[in-house]
Amino acid sequence: MPVDPIALTADLIRCPSVTPVEGGALQLLDKLLSDAGFETTRVDRNGTPNLFARWGARGANKSFGFNGHTDVVPVGDEAAWTVDPFGAKIRDGIMYGRGATDMKSGVAAFAAAAVDFVKDTPPDGAIILTITGDEEGPSTDGTIALLDWMQTNNEAMTACIVGEPTCPNKMGEMIKVGRRGSLTSHFTVTGKQGHSAYPHRANNPLPAMARLVDRLASHEMDQGSDHFDASTLAVVTIDTGNPATNVIPAACKASANVRFNDLHTSADVIAWMQSEVDAVAAEFGVQIDMNTRVSGESFLTPPGELSDLVSAAVEMETGVTPELSTTGGTSDARFVKNHCPVVEVGLVGKTMHQVDECVPIEQITQLKAIYTRVLRDYFS
Amino acid sequence: MPVDPIALTADLIRCPSVTPVEGGALQLLDKLLSDAGFETTRVDRNGTPNLFARWGARGANKSFGFNGHTDVVPVGDEAAWTVDPFGAKIRDGIMYGRGATDMKSGVAAFAAAAVDFVKDTPPDGAIILTITGDEEGPSTDGTIALLDWMQTNNEAMTACIVGEPTCPNKMGEMIKVGRRGSLTSHFTVTGKQGHSAYPHRANNPLPAMARLVDRLASHEMDQGSDHFDASTLAVVTIDTGNPATNVIPAACKASANVRFNDLHTSADVIAWMQSEVDAVAAEFGVQIDMNTRVSGESFLTPPGELSDLVSAAVEMETGVTPELSTTGGTSDARFVKNHCPVVEVGLVGKTMHQVDECVPIEQITQLKAIYTRVLRDYFS
Ligand SMILES: [Zn+2]
Ligand SMILES: [Zn+2]
Repeated sequence: MPVDPIALTADLIRCPSVTPVEGGALQLLDKLLSDAGFETTRVDRNGTPNLFARWGARGANKSFGFNGHTDVVPVGDEAAWTVDPFGAKIRDGIMYGRGATDMKSGVAAFAAAAVDFVKDTPPDGAIILTITGDEEGPSTDGTIALLDWMQTNNEAMTACIVGEPTCPNKMGEMIKVGRRGSLTSHFTVTGKQGHSAYPHRANNPLPAMARLVDRLASHEMDQGSDHFDASTLAVVTIDTGNPATNVIPAACKASANVRFNDLHTSADVIAWMQSEVDAVAAEFGVQIDMNTRVSGESFLTPPGELSDLVSAAVEMETGVTPELSTTGGTSDARFVKNHCPVVEVGLVGKTMHQVDECVPIEQITQLKAIYTRVLRDYFS
Repeated sequence: MPVDPIALTADLIRCPSVTPVEGGALQLLDKLLSDAGFETTRVDRNGTPNLFARWGARGANKSFGFNGHTDVVPVGDEAAWTVDPFGAKIRDGIMYGRGATDMKSGVAAFAAAAVDFVKDTPPDGAIILTITGDEEGPSTDGTIALLDWMQTNNEAMTACIVGEPTCPNKMGEMIKVGRRGSLTSHFTVTGKQGHSAYPHRANNPLPAMARLVDRLASHEMDQGSDHFDASTLAVVTIDTGNPATNVIPAACKASANVRFNDLHTSADVIAWMQSEVDAVAAEFGVQIDMNTRVSGESFLTPPGELSDLVSAAVEMETGVTPELSTTGGTSDARFVKNHCPVVEVGLVGKTMHQVDECVPIEQITQLKAIYTRVLRDYFS
């Protein structure tokens, strides 16, 4: 009997696995996969639960991988839900629950596809699942821990799909072949306080801040690349907090968020911003401190064998030709891309992280079919 | 017997005339001047107490005027005073009390000088005192009300001194022949909120604000004029208050304080700023609102007859050649200058508005001597 991905999604939703709680979700998958002949290992690190599962031989020439997560974001305003967030209730063909789209349905669809596939048509190669319990949290001991462990243990995937929801509105319309990188920088300009009637006795940090923001914001980072939109820098706040109009303040703060494509690394973005900081600091005789947190580098799996294969599978199962996109925020694909070619393909994400998160059950069935076709085509 | 300006200062300090309370100060002066042959009129307006006094004929060819105020700023932290703020205690030759320098001593010195002068050497002309009970407050019904009333009643001064403290540190070192104007503008740039990953779907107000501030702050308004320092514009705050680094804010605010010399009027400063606002709003497609409060226009009594006469008197009585300055904030001289030539001359203002405000009693005696010499020279 084939594994029902709808029932499996429901079972997973009923595990209250709000990050960082395991909630029974990985245990459930562990059992399912073990029973189907997968070799499974819990790769927990610093309390974060993770599951590694492989069918077939370690180091096979073809080792197709899947990456996903079973943790979910908090319920939020529980009173606003019309259903039990962990009830997996189906109403008019739609299943409701936290994680319904992001991404217990994706995990269930792949697990179901993989279990059936190795039973029905055992491939000449391996199938690997890396499922983490922390994608929605700090992610420091999630997919990274799985990949670290794999390296140590000579485990490798030759290609991987990530099962995050990738379609904005319509099943099949989009797969993701990369993501822009993201970083946030905080700037503090320090001058010297004084009376506004005697600006020459003070050193006003605000003109320097204005110049810096102007230079950063008016710079065209690029015009986009073959597969990416243009990189963008958004100054998101400038703050002084000086209520006295006759006082020149001592300092001013600002923050900027940069989304950069494959024409940049975080290092060269930071170097460029630092050069602007240095130039403005020198010109205005002020001190400017810059503090940057990098959320992720940009990456691209250049359209080719893997994306062709995934696109074809999507088109066959949905009748829609998917766009190869690099839009959106970050996902664990940013870690996987260091390991092997990676493409993200999943269902419609419209309700993710929202109250009454839900998924048409038909999409779960379609997604299992897509994943099954990907496996078949990959090993054929 | 000559009027003792020290005793008169003490009597005035003992009147608790914190703006807008009359506190008995104008009544005391009214009696002193009436008894000495001055024609006095209370020119109260909207509850603000003011005193007009003239000795000699209305419309005389030479009508020497004095402008001052008897109101004082609040005591502040009364516990921090080492004396009764309204006690006029003298300790080691120094008199303490609110208004000791700003400016009951100045009013007392001139009133004493004027009373003695008209008795000892009755001049061929008139002496006018315009004393307000609101210089420290909104000033809307103070010196302005006195000048309005004078115009209506065909009263006129041909020259006037304002008795505010004018010396930074040393008696006699500075008189003021003008003041820069002052205005404060508040700017609000309004764009459209959005996600920092998709800046093209938002309309970030911050780059526009940065450009506006840069243009305003980097503009050289002038290089100073014959008697004035350069005009200055100090941006004193820029604020957004957006805590979310992935959100582009809808609006941003900033404020700038402008001190402008006699090469400008507030109107042309505002027109210039508005043109910058319009240019930036058009370039960035944002809305920019500007809201300006004018504290006072710049003015200058060109160095000449009056300043020469006052300078000579100061030098004779103190041995110090006073600098003709246009520095500092605003005073009621900004109103008097519309009526007749005006020069500000007073004692050392170092402790004005502070706890334990005080004046060396010797300075009061010197100031009376200076004012007496000014009167004598003016009418000689
Ligand atoms: Zn997710
Ligand atoms: Zn004053």
